[in-house]
Amino acid sequence: MSTEGQVITCKAAVAWEPNKPLVIEDVQVAPPQAGEVRIKILFTALCHTDAYTWSGKDPEGLFPCILGHEAAGIVESVGEGVTEVQPGDHVIPCYQAECRECKFCKSGKTNLCGKVRGATGAGVMMNDRKSRFSINGKPIYHFMGTSTFSQYTVVHDVSVAKIDPQAPLDKVCLLGCGVPTGLGAVWNTAKVEPGSIVAVFGLGTVGLAVLVDLTDGGVDYSFECIGNVSVMRAALECCHKGWGTSVIVGVAASGQEISTRPFQLVTGRVWKGTAFGGFKSRSQVPWLVDKYMKKEIKVDEYVTHNMTLGEINEAFRYMHGGDCLRCVLKMQD
Amino acid sequence: MSTEGQVITCKAAVAWEPNKPLVIEDVQVAPPQAGEVRIKILFTALCHTDAYTWSGKDPEGLFPCILGHEAAGIVESVGEGVTEVQPGDHVIPCYQAECRECKFCKSGKTNLCGKVRGATGAGVMMNDRKSRFSINGKPIYHFMGTSTFSQYTVVHDVSVAKIDPQAPLDKVCLLGCGVPTGLGAVWNTAKVEPGSIVAVFGLGTVGLAVLVDLTDGGVDYSFECIGNVSVMRAALECCHKGWGTSVIVGVAASGQEISTRPFQLVTGRVWKGTAFGGFKSRSQVPWLVDKYMKKEIKVDEYVTHNMTLGEINEAFRYMHGGDCLRCVLKMQD
Repeated sequence: MSTEGQVITCKAAVAWEPNKPLVIEDVQVAPPQAGEVRIKILFTALCHTDAYTWSGKDPEGLFPCILGHEAAGIVESVGEGVTEVQPGDHVIPCYQAECRECKFCKSGKTNLCGKVRGATGAGVMMNDRKSRFSINGKPIYHFMGTSTFSQYTVVHDVSVAKIDPQAPLDKVCLLGCGVPTGLGAVWNTAKVEPGSIVAVFGLGTVGLAVLVDLTDGGVDYSFECIGNVSVMRAALECCHKGWGTSVIVGVAASGQEISTRPFQLVTGRVWKGTAFGGFKSRSQVPWLVDKYMKKEIKVDEYVTHNMTLGEINEAFRYMHGGDCLRCVLKMQD
Repeated sequence: MSTEGQVITCKAAVAWEPNKPLVIEDVQVAPPQAGEVRIKILFTALCHTDAYTWSGKDPEGLFPCILGHEAAGIVESVGEGVTEVQPGDHVIPCYQAECRECKFCKSGKTNLCGKVRGATGAGVMMNDRKSRFSINGKPIYHFMGTSTFSQYTVVHDVSVAKIDPQAPLDKVCLLGCGVPTGLGAVWNTAKVEPGSIVAVFGLGTVGLAVLVDLTDGGVDYSFECIGNVSVMRAALECCHKGWGTSVIVGVAASGQEISTRPFQLVTGRVWKGTAFGGFKSRSQVPWLVDKYMKKEIKVDEYVTHNMTLGEINEAFRYMHGGDCLRCVLKMQD
């Protein structure tokens, strides 16, 4: 029986308020409007960005909402004017859209498409500035334009990457955020050359002096993957005078600032950042999936835990433990 | 009568202590040792970096010293092993050396040669860690490896650029610092493309919001040429999301720090700096002189005042006034 054009009632993990356990609720998911796509989510992973907003520290966090942004699924139905995907397509929802029409997409210099940002930042869809999620008529906000902690979600068509239907969705869901962010920081943002000395801050803080000493003047490239502004400074200052480049990957808490002496930059260091690794989402996520299928990039190794939607609160506790990289949730029974 | 191998007694402006008027003294200038060059300075310009150290705010400032680093002159004699210049050559002393042998010079990524830095930072010559300047046996420190506020100075051979003898020394002395720093910040460090929107902070602070508003989202490149850490932040934050690059050219006072939200970098802005515009001094200063001779770059327009060594204190007062860009001093009677 087709559900096209119908409201779907399904299970979703709802964040009713900051820092309180997520609640599995029966949620009504409205049909997609013009330029929108409704996706049946098969697998979603948990990411620290979900936990950050859930914690209440994100000043732009809106409640109640459905979190989640690293997932894979199958198109259930599409709204008017949607041409690039159709029901049955295997897809990865992309929190960073790619419209191919805005100033940012056309520049060739950035992946930060601006088309739907205003709506996704406000937790709604662009078409009517409303949510497609509700519980007994009460709207529930979208999150990052993806809201993948639901068995069904509605996203903008510019936020959907169509992928190889042979790809295992319980693995390639990680190509929706974490893996591309890391790969792209190295490939696209820093453009690391073979043979370069690289420091990655994210497994625990490394003593600055020891590092610089070990590397004869500092590293060629450094990456901060924690979101700690003190570590961001250390990551810059451990770079080699004259050419060292430091890339900020981690997301810092609201209101925090980075600082350094300008001398660090005047003597040749470069400070930059990356969002989704600089990848163009709709164009390059399918390409990353293909690279995974050809065994050119690793994904499986990051999945340390497999659980179900009903176990999501426990899964977040695992994520904060030391032995968990990524926990993937099976979303359908 | 040749002065080669002899101590030369000449006039120099000596900074005896911070923030006190410079005093024109009879100074003894020792002959150049191995790897050193003694230069008869014909013209020197004044720069804000001289005034900064003179003020006492530079924690690395040493007194008494002979300031000055933007000049042109003629080689008087050379020490043992010096092959690239000989007496009579027209030269520009370069505060940023270029040895072509150290890790920095060989990297191809930076102009920050490290060979003589330890000595020049300590106000002495590398050979014997002593000064070549003295007054009645009391040593006077070198400054930036150049000390051009003297009728004769001694510099390391890696700090001398040999130039076209037809070039007017009262003009091309500016190619020792200010003009290359500005040109290089645009050409080498930012690599500005034709058609880019550029903001230069250095003529007075421009309202941040107005700027961003005028430029539809921000500028492609910005340059901070003042040395004010608040302006450095404004210069970064007025850059366009996704690709805007801000270059720090100005030298900030000791102990001051720059800061911003890491979000500014994560959303695609790049923060970098430049020293001597990224130019390789010995290789590229002669090339800049050639470009000046072919009228491809402007220099004359920056010279707003011409005075003499004896008027140097008055010249500094002019420099701090609003209508002075560069004051050039005639050093010989």
